[in-house]
Amino acid sequence: MMPGDLVLTPSWTWHDHCSESAEPVIWMDGLDVPLIQSLDTAFYEAFPDDRQPINQAADSTRRYGTGGLKPAWLKPHSSLPPLVRYPWEQTYAALRCLAEIDASPFDDVAMEYTNLATGGSALRTMACWIQMLRPGVRTQAHRQTSCAVYHVFTGQGYSIIEGQRFDWRQGDFFAVPPWGWHEHANPTTEEAILFSIHDTPVFEALGLYREEAYEEHGGQQPVTSVFDG
Amino acid sequence: MMPGDLVLTPSWTWHDHCSESAEPVIWMDGLDVPLIQSLDTAFYEAFPDDRQPINQAADSTRRYGTGGLKPAWLKPHSSLPPLVRYPWEQTYAALRCLAEIDASPFDDVAMEYTNLATGGSALRTMACWIQMLRPGVRTQAHRQTSCAVYHVFTGQGYSIIEGQRFDWRQGDFFAVPPWGWHEHANPTTEEAILFSIHDTPVFEALGLYREEAYEEHGGQQPVTSVFDG
Amino acid sequence: MMPGDLVLTPSWTWHDHCSESAEPVIWMDGLDVPLIQSLDTAFYEAFPDDRQPINQAADSTRRYGTGGLKPAWLKPHSSLPPLVRYPWEQTYAALRCLAEIDASPFDDVAMEYTNLATGGSALRTMACWIQMLRPGVRTQAHRQTSCAVYHVFTGQGYSIIEGQRFDWRQGDFFAVPPWGWHEHANPTTEEAILFSIHDTPVFEALGLYREEAYEEHGGQQPVTSVFDG
Amino acid sequence: MMPGDLVLTPSWTWHDHCSESAEPVIWMDGLDVPLIQSLDTAFYEAFPDDRQPINQAADSTRRYGTGGLKPAWLKPHSSLPPLVRYPWEQTYAALRCLAEIDASPFDDVAMEYTNLATGGSALRTMACWIQMLRPGVRTQAHRQTSCAVYHVFTGQGYSIIEGQRFDWRQGDFFAVPPWGWHEHANPTTEEAILFSIHDTPVFEALGLYREEAYEEHGGQQPVTSVFDG
Repeated sequence: MMPGDLVLTPSWTWHDHCSESAEPVIWMDGLDVPLIQSLDTAFYEAFPDDRQPINQAADSTRRYGTGGLKPAWLKPHSSLPPLVRYPWEQTYAALRCLAEIDASPFDDVAMEYTNLATGGSALRTMACWIQMLRPGVRTQAHRQTSCAVYHVFTGQGYSIIEGQRFDWRQGDFFAVPPWGWHEHANPTTEEAILFSIHDTPVFEALGLYREEAYEEHGGQQPVTSVFDG
Repeated sequence: MMPGDLVLTPSWTWHDHCSESAEPVIWMDGLDVPLIQSLDTAFYEAFPDDRQPINQAADSTRRYGTGGLKPAWLKPHSSLPPLVRYPWEQTYAALRCLAEIDASPFDDVAMEYTNLATGGSALRTMACWIQMLRPGVRTQAHRQTSCAVYHVFTGQGYSIIEGQRFDWRQGDFFAVPPWGWHEHANPTTEEAILFSIHDTPVFEALGLYREEAYEEHGGQQPVTSVFDG
Repeated sequence: MMPGDLVLTPSWTWHDHCSESAEPVIWMDGLDVPLIQSLDTAFYEAFPDDRQPINQAADSTRRYGTGGLKPAWLKPHSSLPPLVRYPWEQTYAALRCLAEIDASPFDDVAMEYTNLATGGSALRTMACWIQMLRPGVRTQAHRQTSCAVYHVFTGQGYSIIEGQRFDWRQGDFFAVPPWGWHEHANPTTEEAILFSIHDTPVFEALGLYREEAYEEHGGQQPVTSVFDG
Repeated sequence: MMPGDLVLTPSWTWHDHCSESAEPVIWMDGLDVPLIQSLDTAFYEAFPDDRQPINQAADSTRRYGTGGLKPAWLKPHSSLPPLVRYPWEQTYAALRCLAEIDASPFDDVAMEYTNLATGGSALRTMACWIQMLRPGVRTQAHRQTSCAVYHVFTGQGYSIIEGQRFDWRQGDFFAVPPWGWHEHANPTTEEAILFSIHDTPVFEALGLYREEAYEEHGGQQPVTSVFDG
């Protein structure tokens, strides 16, 4: 696990965390605990030993790391993502490639990590995004029934959420509430990169997903306040 | 399109072929024409101009080349594979990675190219495989209701098909008939790499797929004849 | 709408209620409001007129009432159940037929209303059951991550829920909480019929469904208290 | 099995036929043998005894006959249709109900038998239709990539297939070839009822299904010849 990597711990899989360096390791841990608790369905089991044994043959990167190829004799199971580590080097290369040809008016160069067995969201209840806001970009506003938590991986900029401006820089977090208008800006001369977790798959699975583009004021919200954290 | 690349031309997409070098280009063209003709359902339309215009934004490698990431604003369509060029460099790296940790007793280090939108076969009617037979490997026999056409990309070896031995080397083709026992061998000290096309998806879509392992003689067929092409 | 009928009002469909008799009409109205509110995703729109016009051609019973046949030119949409009225006469006949050949050890003669377009639950977020407890039946206990609300349509009996006995008779309601052990009994000489609504589809859609049979005491819970409503 | 009933014998299920009357029983037997043979995938196994034992609990009509209800504890398997007998009485009632509210311009009152587990075609490779041509009806022409075999259950009329007129009456068979224009007429004062088998599911499963309406001459083909059987 290196800076910028995404590592999944799918539902009901043993996992332990281990730092091999002398320094602390800090990561953003995205859990669907509020949903699971509202459904009264939290299950937990401790592994009998301190550490689980390491099974080399289960190494998802060696098996599925290319994305477009899978071991021919395996039928990946849809609820257990075949690939569970997405290395930063490859992710960043993907953002640079996409930036050459296309971008979203609402989210600029935004990519979603996919479950290779289904082409759908990385996890059953959470979608993970990596997003490059290019220097000078100012997006249009839209909203979804789903909500999101953002982490600023590099760069700085601001987002306007329900009319309020939130300035952010590397290491910051911010959230977009359900059905909240939001748009992003990178007024600097450097790339800004945002990682985010969305509960979109929950809404899609239940037939409750909706999105809407902001039509007024040329697609951008008037700023009515500035967040003063 | 470079040696070893797989390029898909999905059903009902405009395609033209063009060589930019002074040399001839030779490739293996895998068509499902026999199936389509047996179903009396061949459709064809000529593009109005000599060449279709090139749409940079449609470049599937720049959009989906990483495999595990997709543009967040796109819902890939299941019948039109998002990625249509699988470069050899990446494919070969995947084979080497998988070889470090796992292999099939029947097909050694065999990988299937996948449709990134579904995790399933590259095309609706055809599956594409790339397969490394490591030096010294001798596999077990099995059979499927589906059939396959193989192309020897590099190396040499032999396959035993329905009791007959077929020796092959770089550039050769051979076929495995439906429900035909087959096993592979690479008796050399170099890797052999086979590319193959299977009609497995047809059998799976219609609920007709079956496979069976050869149980007798320790899982390997007695050789009753040798093909003398 | 007659006594015993199930009428669905799928998500985002216009609906109004009308009594043509001089008597009040009372029905059990099952809503997924708690879920929708916990997801902050309630949408509401009033029809512009007092009553919507009646479209005879949309009569789902005339189109799909047989269950096993659909108009050949229509592709039913998976999220909008084709059949929205399940008449009691047919439902009761189905219970009687099933009772002749099979029953569940946990729920006796229990049937689930299905969405004819998918074979799955009647609605995306709610499953509807009709259940006959035959005279003298005493079921085994089990539990699910999902919960349920029961209405006693006819007869009397009791259920043991998490060790507590709840006696019920025609017109009563009771609920089984998530992951709550429950079993049913009909100690009378008449049939008892329960209608119930379950949030099972939510758990299945999110990969969170689990069920477990009670193994101790021959499969039946010791009664530790009696509900004194 | 009574006149007008549809009985399915799904793939790889034991079946034997038995007449309990002194009279011969004649039925239309629809097989997908040409497809299966073209795929070289015919499998056959004889039951060890003369007759298989009868398992009352497997009676699909008692379990699933209502269509909109299933035993709550069973997850129907998508490739094995839960209901395998569709009685004529119910089928005819469905045709009469649909006729009151809607009809297809191409096929008049046409209904497709469905697999209750999926809402899709009765079998994986064959769709079954029952179709009422009301007195005086003359439909429009269309064509599909799939083909069909028709049996005239009652009544008389004619069909125009690729410009040729085929007159038919009770007990007759006729076929519509792949991509063949066809339209139907009932010039009498009695209902005509056609049963038909279509290979539509094969085309849909492989992404090869297409249909087209005939636009010229007000949607009806000029008759260029009359079949003189």
